[in-house]
Amino acid sequence: MPIGWTLPVELAERSYDVSVGVDVLGEIGPMAAALARTGRAVVVTDSNVRDLHAGAAADALSQAGLTVDVIDFPAGEASKCLAVYGQVMDRLLGLSPPIDRSALIVAVGGGVVGDLAGFVAATALRGLDFVNVPTTLLADVDSSVGGKTGIDSAAGKNLIGAFHQPRAVLIDAAVLKTLPPRELGNGLAECVKHAVIRDRSLLEFVEHNAAAIRAAEPQVLAELIARNVAIKSAVVSADERESGQRAHLNFGHTIGHAIEAASGYGVIGHGEAVSLGMVANGHIAVARGLISADDAQRVRSLLASLSLPVRFDDLPEIPPQARDPQRLADIMARDKKAVRGVPRFVLSTTLGHVKVFDDITPEEITASIETLG
Amino acid sequence: MPIGWTLPVELAERSYDVSVGVDVLGEIGPMAAALARTGRAVVVTDSNVRDLHAGAAADALSQAGLTVDVIDFPAGEASKCLAVYGQVMDRLLGLSPPIDRSALIVAVGGGVVGDLAGFVAATALRGLDFVNVPTTLLADVDSSVGGKTGIDSAAGKNLIGAFHQPRAVLIDAAVLKTLPPRELGNGLAECVKHAVIRDRSLLEFVEHNAAAIRAAEPQVLAELIARNVAIKSAVVSADERESGQRAHLNFGHTIGHAIEAASGYGVIGHGEAVSLGMVANGHIAVARGLISADDAQRVRSLLASLSLPVRFDDLPEIPPQARDPQRLADIMARDKKAVRGVPRFVLSTTLGHVKVFDDITPEEITASIETLG
Repeated sequence: MPIGWTLPVELAERSYDVSVGVDVLGEIGPMAAALARTGRAVVVTDSNVRDLHAGAAADALSQAGLTVDVIDFPAGEASKCLAVYGQVMDRLLGLSPPIDRSALIVAVGGGVVGDLAGFVAATALRGLDFVNVPTTLLADVDSSVGGKTGIDSAAGKNLIGAFHQPRAVLIDAAVLKTLPPRELGNGLAECVKHAVIRDRSLLEFVEHNAAAIRAAEPQVLAELIARNVAIKSAVVSADERESGQRAHLNFGHTIGHAIEAASGYGVIGHGEAVSLGMVANGHIAVARGLISADDAQRVRSLLASLSLPVRFDDLPEIPPQARDPQRLADIMARDKKAVRGVPRFVLSTTLGHVKVFDDITPEEITASIETLG
Repeated sequence: MPIGWTLPVELAERSYDVSVGVDVLGEIGPMAAALARTGRAVVVTDSNVRDLHAGAAADALSQAGLTVDVIDFPAGEASKCLAVYGQVMDRLLGLSPPIDRSALIVAVGGGVVGDLAGFVAATALRGLDFVNVPTTLLADVDSSVGGKTGIDSAAGKNLIGAFHQPRAVLIDAAVLKTLPPRELGNGLAECVKHAVIRDRSLLEFVEHNAAAIRAAEPQVLAELIARNVAIKSAVVSADERESGQRAHLNFGHTIGHAIEAASGYGVIGHGEAVSLGMVANGHIAVARGLISADDAQRVRSLLASLSLPVRFDDLPEIPPQARDPQRLADIMARDKKAVRGVPRFVLSTTLGHVKVFDDITPEEITASIETLG
């Protein structure tokens, strides 16, 4: 099977396809060759992925007749900063012969690579085409669709960036076999999120296939990815710039981001933080009478069955300050999605549906966080 | 007279108006108040313009009921770099209370301020609204329309940036009385360019009003600015992303950019370099039989009457390497608008009309540069 699923992301003149399959990394060659207007491609990757997958991608690009350069940077969230952005940009703009606007950026790596390489593509020569080849489940189901690119600033994560849609996304589920289990979990949290906000049948799929998913069985992961991409794509297509229903994708993220920030970035995984955020959200929704305690427990059990944390003690590395409800509430008030200091919450109204709430009180927030303790 | 001219820039959902008048700086207050969704404005300016005009603009914003912060950076082209971009971004994102996506950036200054503040606006929180208040003639007639924002890199000028349209542009011709005459000349070169590529009657207007223009007579400058904005706006509206006729705006810039780069940025003015580029272009067009020697001489005489350089010796600060035809040709081959090393030229076909040429030979280029020597 070459490509198993081709999922369109509909964004008028910026529409593109997400292709998902097993053992399809080599397809990047013909795919990029069809897009690179003058046969020049630049692979951007990190020091981990370079040897694991980016080399193979570069070989496939060469075999398809493209001239290929590879730029890598140190793996890790710390690279998502202005200094590394400047280094990658200097290397890109300093290539010999110089690139022109017809050059194609090919990002190969996890979320950090996609975000940083995408922002470089958005801003080099005021915008180059780019293709994204995510290599983590989190990047597959989350950052690969939506066009968000960017870096962190001293004031917070992802505060510097641009919306820049890729020309195509290629996802090979087979590369996930090199992914550490905890990294897989980070992506699974977003999969549960998609199920809870949009698709009860996906919730059942994950429940029934939890063991195969944890074992990284490629065909099951490929189907899981395709279903999640379809959900995210539908949301983003309806609301590219995040003014309406795209806010639903922040389910679990209001509290999750705060826990992640208070822990210090990199101390716990993004999906791990979101898992805790979803559990806390469930508590608020139950307390408000929006969903039943059974529904909240069902989500909590599914997260636990995927080895995701459902209370602070599941992750001993979470420091005391990231368990402090008042401190987390302060961070939420400064979140870039907060409006005049009031954090925005997405809560379940039934499994598969959510609504945005701008009236969650500080007391509800702190009470929900206390249930994690 | 409050606003003399209101010129629409038609770009679908990103359309905006350019307002031109005399003594209209205070209009920034009500204008920004109508745009700032939650009453928060951040003025970005440089160390020169801060006292001259940005303070008055900030006062007008406060009087209109907005909460105003002012961020300035050292005046000069050297500030158009990643380090200063990072400093401005850190100050913006570190404001207390933190800004959210409803904040409005108000750029007050020349081209460097507009380009840098515009790029900050394009990339802070993935895009903030901004209003541009240009304070030099060059910025009024050139960079204020078109949405090009960005900074320089080690590899060249404006290589890092984004297209980001302002929500409005306010031009006060009265502020130009503080502009050094040589800076005025930089803008006049672009005015002559617009006349040559699109509007023979504008050429006559400049010829008839050369003395009043050189004396910075506000009403004449306001009319000059309005006519130029209308031309640039029409070109940009027809071709936002520079794939077609927007290339006409590069008339005089292929050779001009090369002279500017070889001189070392800041040694001569951008408009001065473009003036020399237009004279050299005229030579190629005459040699190709596209225009008469009289027409080329008419443009050359007009530039000279505006105290703009028409040969290298008019600007003793141009170093020997920037007069070397071969060196300039090498730089042009690396220009970001060159396609596979072949520089793109815009040449007159008659006064008021131009065409793009991709077949100008190295011999034609070097011969035209020799006529400047």
